[in-house]
Amino acid sequence: MLLDKPIPFIFFFRKIRREALFVFLFACMVVVTKHFLGLRFLTIPIAVPTLIGTCISLLLAFRTNQAYERWWEARIAWGSIVNDSRSFIRQLMLFIPNGPDRDAIIESFVRRQCAWCYVLGDSLRGVDMSQHLREFLPAANARYIMTFDNKPNALLLEHGMAIRQLYDTDQLTDYQMVSLSELLTKLTDSMGRCERIKNTVFPRTYTFNLQVFIYLFAAILPFCFEADLDVLDVLLVTLIASAFILIDKSATQLQDPFENKPTDTPMTTIARTIEINLKTMANVGAVPQKMEAEAYYAL
Amino acid sequence: MLLDKPIPFIFFFRKIRREALFVFLFACMVVVTKHFLGLRFLTIPIAVPTLIGTCISLLLAFRTNQAYERWWEARIAWGSIVNDSRSFIRQLMLFIPNGPDRDAIIESFVRRQCAWCYVLGDSLRGVDMSQHLREFLPAANARYIMTFDNKPNALLLEHGMAIRQLYDTDQLTDYQMVSLSELLTKLTDSMGRCERIKNTVFPRTYTFNLQVFIYLFAAILPFCFEADLDVLDVLLVTLIASAFILIDKSATQLQDPFENKPTDTPMTTIARTIEINLKTMANVGAVPQKMEAEAYYAL
Amino acid sequence: MLLDKPIPFIFFFRKIRREALFVFLFACMVVVTKHFLGLRFLTIPIAVPTLIGTCISLLLAFRTNQAYERWWEARIAWGSIVNDSRSFIRQLMLFIPNGPDRDAIIESFVRRQCAWCYVLGDSLRGVDMSQHLREFLPAANARYIMTFDNKPNALLLEHGMAIRQLYDTDQLTDYQMVSLSELLTKLTDSMGRCERIKNTVFPRTYTFNLQVFIYLFAAILPFCFEADLDVLDVLLVTLIASAFILIDKSATQLQDPFENKPTDTPMTTIARTIEINLKTMANVGAVPQKMEAEAYYAL
Amino acid sequence: MLLDKPIPFIFFFRKIRREALFVFLFACMVVVTKHFLGLRFLTIPIAVPTLIGTCISLLLAFRTNQAYERWWEARIAWGSIVNDSRSFIRQLMLFIPNGPDRDAIIESFVRRQCAWCYVLGDSLRGVDMSQHLREFLPAANARYIMTFDNKPNALLLEHGMAIRQLYDTDQLTDYQMVSLSELLTKLTDSMGRCERIKNTVFPRTYTFNLQVFIYLFAAILPFCFEADLDVLDVLLVTLIASAFILIDKSATQLQDPFENKPTDTPMTTIARTIEINLKTMANVGAVPQKMEAEAYYAL
Amino acid sequence: MLLDKPIPFIFFFRKIRREALFVFLFACMVVVTKHFLGLRFLTIPIAVPTLIGTCISLLLAFRTNQAYERWWEARIAWGSIVNDSRSFIRQLMLFIPNGPDRDAIIESFVRRQCAWCYVLGDSLRGVDMSQHLREFLPAANARYIMTFDNKPNALLLEHGMAIRQLYDTDQLTDYQMVSLSELLTKLTDSMGRCERIKNTVFPRTYTFNLQVFIYLFAAILPFCFEADLDVLDVLLVTLIASAFILIDKSATQLQDPFENKPTDTPMTTIARTIEINLKTMANVGAVPQKMEAEAYYAL
Repeated sequence: MLLDKPIPFIFFFRKIRREALFVFLFACMVVVTKHFLGLRFLTIPIAVPTLIGTCISLLLAFRTNQAYERWWEARIAWGSIVNDSRSFIRQLMLFIPNGPDRDAIIESFVRRQCAWCYVLGDSLRGVDMSQHLREFLPAANARYIMTFDNKPNALLLEHGMAIRQLYDTDQLTDYQMVSLSELLTKLTDSMGRCERIKNTVFPRTYTFNLQVFIYLFAAILPFCFEADLDVLDVLLVTLIASAFILIDKSATQLQDPFENKPTDTPMTTIARTIEINLKTMANVGAVPQKMEAEAYYAL
Repeated sequence: MLLDKPIPFIFFFRKIRREALFVFLFACMVVVTKHFLGLRFLTIPIAVPTLIGTCISLLLAFRTNQAYERWWEARIAWGSIVNDSRSFIRQLMLFIPNGPDRDAIIESFVRRQCAWCYVLGDSLRGVDMSQHLREFLPAANARYIMTFDNKPNALLLEHGMAIRQLYDTDQLTDYQMVSLSELLTKLTDSMGRCERIKNTVFPRTYTFNLQVFIYLFAAILPFCFEADLDVLDVLLVTLIASAFILIDKSATQLQDPFENKPTDTPMTTIARTIEINLKTMANVGAVPQKMEAEAYYAL
Repeated sequence: MLLDKPIPFIFFFRKIRREALFVFLFACMVVVTKHFLGLRFLTIPIAVPTLIGTCISLLLAFRTNQAYERWWEARIAWGSIVNDSRSFIRQLMLFIPNGPDRDAIIESFVRRQCAWCYVLGDSLRGVDMSQHLREFLPAANARYIMTFDNKPNALLLEHGMAIRQLYDTDQLTDYQMVSLSELLTKLTDSMGRCERIKNTVFPRTYTFNLQVFIYLFAAILPFCFEADLDVLDVLLVTLIASAFILIDKSATQLQDPFENKPTDTPMTTIARTIEINLKTMANVGAVPQKMEAEAYYAL
Repeated sequence: MLLDKPIPFIFFFRKIRREALFVFLFACMVVVTKHFLGLRFLTIPIAVPTLIGTCISLLLAFRTNQAYERWWEARIAWGSIVNDSRSFIRQLMLFIPNGPDRDAIIESFVRRQCAWCYVLGDSLRGVDMSQHLREFLPAANARYIMTFDNKPNALLLEHGMAIRQLYDTDQLTDYQMVSLSELLTKLTDSMGRCERIKNTVFPRTYTFNLQVFIYLFAAILPFCFEADLDVLDVLLVTLIASAFILIDKSATQLQDPFENKPTDTPMTTIARTIEINLKTMANVGAVPQKMEAEAYYAL
Repeated sequence: MLLDKPIPFIFFFRKIRREALFVFLFACMVVVTKHFLGLRFLTIPIAVPTLIGTCISLLLAFRTNQAYERWWEARIAWGSIVNDSRSFIRQLMLFIPNGPDRDAIIESFVRRQCAWCYVLGDSLRGVDMSQHLREFLPAANARYIMTFDNKPNALLLEHGMAIRQLYDTDQLTDYQMVSLSELLTKLTDSMGRCERIKNTVFPRTYTFNLQVFIYLFAAILPFCFEADLDVLDVLLVTLIASAFILIDKSATQLQDPFENKPTDTPMTTIARTIEINLKTMANVGAVPQKMEAEAYYAL
């Protein structure tokens, strides 16, 4: 997540470097063709590229909107993870009766829940998960989880098996067990939401349509000026088309929020917040510090 | 689902071939009429087709948006199927007490659930379902399911009857049975969502209105140029109208995501993911490989 | 629901006949006034009607969107009815214990549920309900239901009373009864959604505002052409205004989906699908055929 | 709610009388200033006010949309009240066992629920509530409720206390009590939704921004016409600005649906429908007639 | 929340002071450059800045819409807090059996719930929380809560532990405890929603894109006028760009509703309403007056 701090200009420029250059060369080509083929007499009313521009604007509005929705939904999913993690541990502390191993049981759930949050983030970003597993779980358990294809799902199954054991030893009633199991269902839903956003490619036809329109626009605009200022043509086409492309790129960045990039949903920061909350609630030792933000973004 | 790989140009062009040709011929006809009937003196301000173009753009924005919503809802329904399948099997593993046939019971549920996912996809696409039924179910059971009109619904009923049997033999409490039954209700809802999207034709009046506007646009534009360049008229009308039609076609593709086409929701890939998840969770043998994507899309 | 079949042109034209004629006469009047009152010298920049046109386009986009939302919500409500009907019967089959009258009990629920679906559709369309009641219910019961003001609600109450009787005779546990009662609540919600859409008039101020803008547009446009072609003025105004009105009318049709018209939500077809599903599930005799679609639409 | 009947023209005109006059005077002032200060030579391209007009159109589209959302949400809240009232009484009839005072208990709940519906409407409209309380409740109880700050909330508390008494006298099981209590929670939610809409002022900055743009538009437009027709300037500015203001006012009306005005959510009509439904269900005497609509609207 | 009262003009102007000045200087610079470098002959069609203006308008529409959504979601979260607070206390009054300390127990819950509402508001605004804690809680308890990192979460945990104690002393059944615990889960969700809105920075790329477009607009517009009126150029550019910036700033204000500013969600006012409601319901002494609104806003 980009923070409310100064962002280096290069961050924005790097995104559109290649496309801007490409449009520039394309515009040069069109203008040169027009010049040398003697197509000067050709004048297209300026309303035509304006119309195409309106259409591009509407397509960009659509793109921007849907990309924002994906980004916001990803953030909502992680917000739900925060809420459900807190509720899960609070319900456990409410339900598990007093007994010699009550604290140990709750701590094991807290640790597994923290591990789940970090590992879900790692798994979505496609980075190494074993480190966080080893940090929170006993070594043998961490190795066992690593054998699964979908590690976060395996951790939820572990949660379930631990609840079942509490039920078998009469530390939970029938109804309490099901109520906890339903919170696991909610965590499963949030996980599935993130996976859905991660795995669904934004309809590629729209990216293509947008490009068709932008190049149509770049090809027609030079024929609309009466003046002989070919340099101006090229400049204007490049500037406007680059601005369009910039919006498109911004949407692309937003719509894929689990790519280990500065515009990501700040999953590590959120997981750390959850860790602090849960450990404080259950009075489990070694509460860490809040995450310090990187230069201009938080991961 | 189209993947993030190079897509052959023909894929886009094939969609609009016929319509583009039709608009081209229509534009030629208009220009020829104008030429031979001596309607040259007729000049309509360019603002008129621009206005029509704005209106087309807004209708296209609406189309695009609603088509995207349908596509995204279809994907959400399948995301819910992933989540609820995992939760269903996890709950079963939590609830069913230890006993000699525990593993066999869970395996039968896992197999039926996998069958349900594949068969639901087949049923929505209208392809043969018997193969997937035979793959996961005992032959007699598969034949029995094939006698039903709505096979996926029959499989959910089978799930229900199996749960009832567990309850009758005191392997589930009253409350656990109802909790499982509610997950079946959620699977029924996801199935119903897909069927609703499949069976509801997008309001045809809008397709018609759009065509009315595009042909109005194509009929008026040639009268707005002062120059005598009839070829340019035809070219511009064809290009712009084709671009409009391209957006319309993209929306049409998106809004019907269960047609066994490259732009489909990747139901087979998702069903395979579910199969891998469930079999790993319940430790059922013969876990398959992940689906390999086709050239540029995943089904 | 309009199907994916050829639609007679008259279907679209009939909707706007009167309004198109009215705009035509209005445009003639304006042009004649301009001609005879010597207002020729008056020229208004074309940008003024363009601006009004943009505003009309945005109002139409709003209209179209909200009308679509209503139509889609009506379809979602009926989708929920399909899902909840299936889940209701499945839960009954899961809960009711084996016994001599098990099949008779389930059949009576299936018949009442089918009656409810058909009668809800009839009630929303304002057509005769007694026929469907007699088809599915015993004659005395059908007559009793007909005495109620809100027949579908009375049928849900009957469902409730039948569940209460099962509970009183110990065929349902406390928890199972409440779970079934909650499905009745969901059916009540879907019914209420349809009634809400049926009974809520779309804000009439917007229809009025749109008309104000369209006539303003029609009154200003003739003053924007420099040429003396009054016929062209009239033609263009009529064509463009008619296209606007066509979109408005399409929205109106869509927003009222329970009017016994071709653009209705296909309630009878859906009720038939539910009937087939439920009768197959419960193995109740005389399963009917699927509805055959009418010429170009399904009711 | 405005009905589908002829609406007096004065209804629309009264809304914009003052603003239209104000814009008219403002436009006169601008034109006179231009004339007497010799600013004739000043010509601003017509594209500038067009651009401002586009921006106004988009702001109006936003306003219209959000106002509609509020209006529709208010209607949805009242739709939920209909559904939950029916479900509440049906559940009571299902749960309360046969006994000498069964009918009296149900009748008291029906009467309190009817009172709640009417009183919630009165409270949102800020009109006298004591009349409806006296109509449905015993005099002492009605006086007691009147001592509360929030009367509808007090009635829900009364519902709760009555349920508690049934539970204490063993007429409800633990589970049935909680299920009824959850329906009270849903009624609380609908009430809170209405209160939220009533108490939240639409962001006033947007009203201000819109005015800024409209007056900017009215100030610039007269400088864009080349002709000397100052009267036309004033007329056009007044007409177009009035049309913009009309849309804005329509949105304002829609966004505050609890102001005892013709465009209100028809709460009294809905409460009457609920009264008829509940009294028929529970066979409580003196079922009233349906509300007759006023001239062109229903309250 | 801004109220429906006269708002000082300075409130709006202060927001855009700096940016308006900056655009003014920028426009002067462009015009001076054009004048002295002899770039007079350069004329760009007015359609080019119009197109850029359309694109700015659409980006602003997007901004406005999403900012409104955040603001409205914040208000919805606080609406849920009102509803759930009422339902929580009503359920407690329904569930807790008669006994000597019934009133004391309910009062302690009422006080803690009031504290939670005020403290959540304080915590979101980043102001001192200890005052409200001391007002509602025993001194020792208030100090204990202050040791937690997340105070509102600690209060919910206290709620949970108090419920657990009631369950341990047999004043709540198993089912009632879980039902109360689920209301705590709903309060956790509302709290999490507010925290999510507070902690999520609106995508900064869009702010940047908007600025790029506005400065592109300001740089191109002066080249579109044929007249020699440089002053007019500067004036128009400054006015229009300022209007754009005003909309942008309004969106920014709206999207961050927990900043202790006049445009905030009125959390203190809502918390006071909850306090009045709960204390009246449970008959707890010292019911405060309603909040008096400040000059033109309510906090």
